[in-house]
Amino acid sequence: MPALPASILATPEPPIPAVRHWAARYRGTAPLLDMTQAVPGYPPHPALLARLGAAAADPALASYGPIEGDAALREAVAADLSARYGAAIAPDQVAITAGCNLAFAMVMAALAGPGARVGLPTPWYFNHQMTLLMQGAVPVPIPCLPEEGFIPDPDRVAALLPGLSALVLVTPNNPTGAVYPAEVLARIAAAAAAAGVWLVLDETYRDFLADDAPPHTLFGEAGWPERLVQLYSFSKAYCIPGQRLGAVVAGGAVREALMKALDSFQICPARPGQAALAWAVPALAEWRAANRAIMAGRAQAAREALGQLPGWRLDSIGAYFAYVRLPREAPDALAMAERLAVEHGLLCLPGPFFGPGQERHLRLAFANVEEARIRELPGRLAWAGAAW
Amino acid sequence: MPALPASILATPEPPIPAVRHWAARYRGTAPLLDMTQAVPGYPPHPALLARLGAAAADPALASYGPIEGDAALREAVAADLSARYGAAIAPDQVAITAGCNLAFAMVMAALAGPGARVGLPTPWYFNHQMTLLMQGAVPVPIPCLPEEGFIPDPDRVAALLPGLSALVLVTPNNPTGAVYPAEVLARIAAAAAAAGVWLVLDETYRDFLADDAPPHTLFGEAGWPERLVQLYSFSKAYCIPGQRLGAVVAGGAVREALMKALDSFQICPARPGQAALAWAVPALAEWRAANRAIMAGRAQAAREALGQLPGWRLDSIGAYFAYVRLPREAPDALAMAERLAVEHGLLCLPGPFFGPGQERHLRLAFANVEEARIRELPGRLAWAGAAW
Repeated sequence: MPALPASILATPEPPIPAVRHWAARYRGTAPLLDMTQAVPGYPPHPALLARLGAAAADPALASYGPIEGDAALREAVAADLSARYGAAIAPDQVAITAGCNLAFAMVMAALAGPGARVGLPTPWYFNHQMTLLMQGAVPVPIPCLPEEGFIPDPDRVAALLPGLSALVLVTPNNPTGAVYPAEVLARIAAAAAAAGVWLVLDETYRDFLADDAPPHTLFGEAGWPERLVQLYSFSKAYCIPGQRLGAVVAGGAVREALMKALDSFQICPARPGQAALAWAVPALAEWRAANRAIMAGRAQAAREALGQLPGWRLDSIGAYFAYVRLPREAPDALAMAERLAVEHGLLCLPGPFFGPGQERHLRLAFANVEEARIRELPGRLAWAGAAW
Repeated sequence: MPALPASILATPEPPIPAVRHWAARYRGTAPLLDMTQAVPGYPPHPALLARLGAAAADPALASYGPIEGDAALREAVAADLSARYGAAIAPDQVAITAGCNLAFAMVMAALAGPGARVGLPTPWYFNHQMTLLMQGAVPVPIPCLPEEGFIPDPDRVAALLPGLSALVLVTPNNPTGAVYPAEVLARIAAAAAAAGVWLVLDETYRDFLADDAPPHTLFGEAGWPERLVQLYSFSKAYCIPGQRLGAVVAGGAVREALMKALDSFQICPARPGQAALAWAVPALAEWRAANRAIMAGRAQAAREALGQLPGWRLDSIGAYFAYVRLPREAPDALAMAERLAVEHGLLCLPGPFFGPGQERHLRLAFANVEEARIRELPGRLAWAGAAW
């Protein structure tokens, strides 16, 4: 057999199937409690489903569309972003992508490339690390500390910027749920600009922020396309991960470079979902906002449930995720996650999937779990406080 | 502004928008004749559209699916391939992808990687070259000759294999339409195996072959997953490029490596189209076969139309494409294609978009053009025989 490249061999296996593989050995009677994947926990709006159905049955939408996505959706997203961020974002600064993971891969092809060093605060989103490794880039861990709520410290970030091509921040964060304050983002953005490092903000979970204040002011700065790219996903806010649609906000030379990647990797994003979303982005704004309350309720249920467990520490929670620290006497996260899956039917991702230094943490994705089932957590985890 | 990587700067611009940009300067009265893109020239089957609509309105299909695609579609494709190739292809050797371009990018990440040398017969498919360049791989041209019908010569290919990681063949070919005979494929496959080079067959246009004989016998060889990967697109055969669905046939260690790329780049392919195709692959087999006749009729019309033009030479035709050689006195293809677009409203792709040595050729994608309009070709091109 011909050799496989070092880049793919160095890339870790997909994490979620690994955990689900453990679950196949579960023999308990209580149903599985799957907290592995960031899945929206309620169905799409019925009117969105109706429009998705009509669009998919439309022969006009069975054909190719523009490389960068349909104009109607780009206009709707630009208007939505402009209102949310108090800035003027143009439709031709928005590109629609076949999901936000592909958006990241294409942006990295445009900005970083093979051999580039890309800063990822740890714990990081595992697919970011995997994509960079298979593209021959170098993920550079930028440690975030539990005692600082996993918010990156601008001074420590600045010290690590030299030699990087890009810095990728995820806010609200996956896996910690941490929301980076606007002033922290402004300071990091200034440091990145001074160091000649691209700043890439993955704001997949921005619709679940607790308030309506602009998440940051970076789009209000003149010349932002010379230093900033934003990523977004329609999967969470509109509950349609199965449609695989995301977006990139980028301008100028980045946009030109990105078009090459869009053409080569996706040709165009899938069309029917774009048509339905062009309606939904303005029309479902209130529904989207109301769903924040559901997620806030689940976060509160997770907070209360995890607070009942002696020795466990809820280091961070927000948006879709709780990031919990194991009791001092517990085995490491990888062994714990396997035992939780095999013996207790609780599926969650161990910290080491999110980068170095995470051996004592677990990520619980609670978005897809109703509050009543979130309250099962103490029972599933209680054994862990007693006997290792 | 931070620097952009050499890999993306070395990648050419997307070709089709460039040609359409020329067309914006067309001031003629005859309607544009767009022969740039390989678009199916008839609508999807109404029953497929109905199933697409129902699937897209189904909340269950709004959620994530398996990384490698839904089991029902993988089973349908495996059965279809097994029958077509007279071989036993298992569902877990099939992965569904967000289009065939992404399939190529992911397979190259799995097999080639940054720095790898990948053989592409010329004229090549431009997105293959672009993807390799932005991944930091090196496209190695393998010249095919018009006087040999653009069929690669196995001995000349064998001489160019040392040092390659992979060899990518497209059959039926884009842009020439050439169909590589099974015995040529067998000889090249044997040479690649002997040289330790992965063979990747892009068979996007396989449903438009003139007969029902197996396109090749490579899937019948023991251990094929140790050396062979096949790519496929649902866009052409089912007329649904807007759904963005393709497939990879791969096994063993390649499959394992590919799963990392699938997870990172696509998470899963879009779901509603998968559900509809699981029905369509067996149910629309006859409809698919009947469409070959439509395409054959258009090919014949293109053959006749181009035969009327003194000095022009139809070097190759098949599936979706005619690849024509300019008259000796004509300017080079890039200038010709621009003049054809700007002055005569005929949009086609000049040879240089398909690699080195193509300065005297144009690709005409006739699949999307009805026979009556194909017969306009002599009128649009006639001026070109007279005055340069």
